Amino acid sequence: MPETPVCYEDVALAARRLQGVAHLTPVMSSRTLDERSGNRVLLKCENFQRAGAFKFRGAYNALASQLEAAQTRGVVTHSSGNHAQALALAGRLLQVPVTVVMPQDAPAVKAAATRGYGAEIVLYDPAREQREVISGRLKEERGLLLIPPFDDPHVIAGQGTAAMELVDQANGLDVVLAPCGGGGLLSGTALAVRRLNPHARILGVEPEGANNGQRAFRSGRLEVVEHPQTMADGLKPRSLGTHTLAVIRACVDDMLTVSEEQIRSSLAFLWERMKLVVEPSGAVALAPVLHGLLGCKGKRVGVILSGGNADIGAVADWLRAPSA
Amino acid sequence: MPETPVCYEDVALAARRLQGVAHLTPVMSSRTLDERSGNRVLLKCENFQRAGAFKFRGAYNALASQLEAAQTRGVVTHSSGNHAQALALAGRLLQVPVTVVMPQDAPAVKAAATRGYGAEIVLYDPAREQREVISGRLKEERGLLLIPPFDDPHVIAGQGTAAMELVDQANGLDVVLAPCGGGGLLSGTALAVRRLNPHARILGVEPEGANNGQRAFRSGRLEVVEHPQTMADGLKPRSLGTHTLAVIRACVDDMLTVSEEQIRSSLAFLWERMKLVVEPSGAVALAPVLHGLLGCKGKRVGVILSGGNADIGAVADWLRAPSA
Repeated sequence: MPETPVCYEDVALAARRLQGVAHLTPVMSSRTLDERSGNRVLLKCENFQRAGAFKFRGAYNALASQLEAAQTRGVVTHSSGNHAQALALAGRLLQVPVTVVMPQDAPAVKAAATRGYGAEIVLYDPAREQREVISGRLKEERGLLLIPPFDDPHVIAGQGTAAMELVDQANGLDVVLAPCGGGGLLSGTALAVRRLNPHARILGVEPEGANNGQRAFRSGRLEVVEHPQTMADGLKPRSLGTHTLAVIRACVDDMLTVSEEQIRSSLAFLWERMKLVVEPSGAVALAPVLHGLLGCKGKRVGVILSGGNADIGAVADWLRAPSA
Repeated sequence: MPETPVCYEDVALAARRLQGVAHLTPVMSSRTLDERSGNRVLLKCENFQRAGAFKFRGAYNALASQLEAAQTRGVVTHSSGNHAQALALAGRLLQVPVTVVMPQDAPAVKAAATRGYGAEIVLYDPAREQREVISGRLKEERGLLLIPPFDDPHVIAGQGTAAMELVDQANGLDVVLAPCGGGGLLSGTALAVRRLNPHARILGVEPEGANNGQRAFRSGRLEVVEHPQTMADGLKPRSLGTHTLAVIRACVDDMLTVSEEQIRSSLAFLWERMKLVVEPSGAVALAPVLHGLLGCKGKRVGVILSGGNADIGAVADWLRAPSA
């Protein structure tokens, strides 16, 4: 295996830091799902993670691994999504001052949740400025540590702890699927599973309209999707990062894409049949399993449901809209 | 304790029949909930039960306890809700023919789900006929066994197995809350908890607009609410039955009521914070805990979330409607 910027030992260290802090989230299953897939399907419910998504794992690990610097200098990130809330919560738990750069038009509820955990929010005008520029300037001016949402060894290592738990809870797996946006969760998952279940197939899953990861996996270099088109808003980073690309190339077996309609019906299955509030991004890795894209039977298949911070009204509207 | 038409031993027998058939549903908790309530709160997630609600327990137990008669004669019930689906599923598992009497205007999705489990559906016009009359006629004409939705010793005993599990999973409880419609779940819960944790307070919870149980608990006789007004449509039976009233009078400590707004905010908490799809009826027993109606601190409080068969669009609309 080629060398990667972060390795299994980093994931194992992260698991120790997260012990008793992150939830050991449950694994759920469904007879209907098993019958429909022809496999034994085990769903890792990161929608039940603290702050509602796996992101807490990476954010906490990033702060805990450089605690003194983080506490002294404070940290900054740019995100309007789950990473912002996760970092804000991790900062509150570890007495680290957190600054979050968010676009002015971010949903008020997300800004409120982030502020609720005690973070400072700096708004910017996305039509006129770029978020990386703002966070870079804050880093310089205030001496803050930058904690990126995915392309960071500590963040990747933390995200890998979900799959580490899953392999253990499932008593071993033949196939593992994780959604891919910027690739933090998928990279961490791949590092953990490649070591713990060396023969398992590790698959990343993306929406068709946001397949920068699949393209990068094939070409071997960063690929950009300028305007990602998908309801799975957590998977909208325009490209992987250099760290996540390196790990994904080294450890992932294949990258699949799924249609919006496949994501929608997977989301409907999770809400209606399994009674789980999962956000659209969190249903993406289930879609290949429900729609017969795996090409295997009788296997033990693990799926990471990445988060549950859904806009309930928007999901309900999507679920009841007539199929496209 | 006065004699009741069904006792703890019936619940224990039901638990044996349900072993390996019903799901041992998980118990979930939330730091935020514990902090807000000042108690340790344990939620029994019957929304994850087979067919989406605790009703499967009672329906299956009723068929399994009189299996030969049920298989030979077939069974009938009147219900447009969770009991119908639960009985249809239990019938499929036990090779018992099931007939369900439903109003013509029952939601198509509920009829489809019941039919999907293999039950025969007999529709009637609720403006012209009464459902009890129709099911009574089918019972006579076809010799079917009637399996009532709540006022039946076997059904009550089956429902009690949820609380039996909860007491065990929680390592003992000081207070237990269950929602009350016709009283089947509450009766079974009370029988189980009164024996297993004799000093626990057992509380039934109803919507203010459907408080027939509270009135009957106080007066000692059946009380009818002609037109129950509540979003919690599973709690709309117009009165308790003679069996459930007897058990509730004997074993329950008090009956509480909660407002629609309290139900709504409890439902919002379950969906938004805990990521659980619970139907409005299923959130009712949580409302006194979230809204400070318990009058205790530092206790171990068990709450039964009774089911998850929500109309997702209707719930989303309710959650985003401005508070009344």
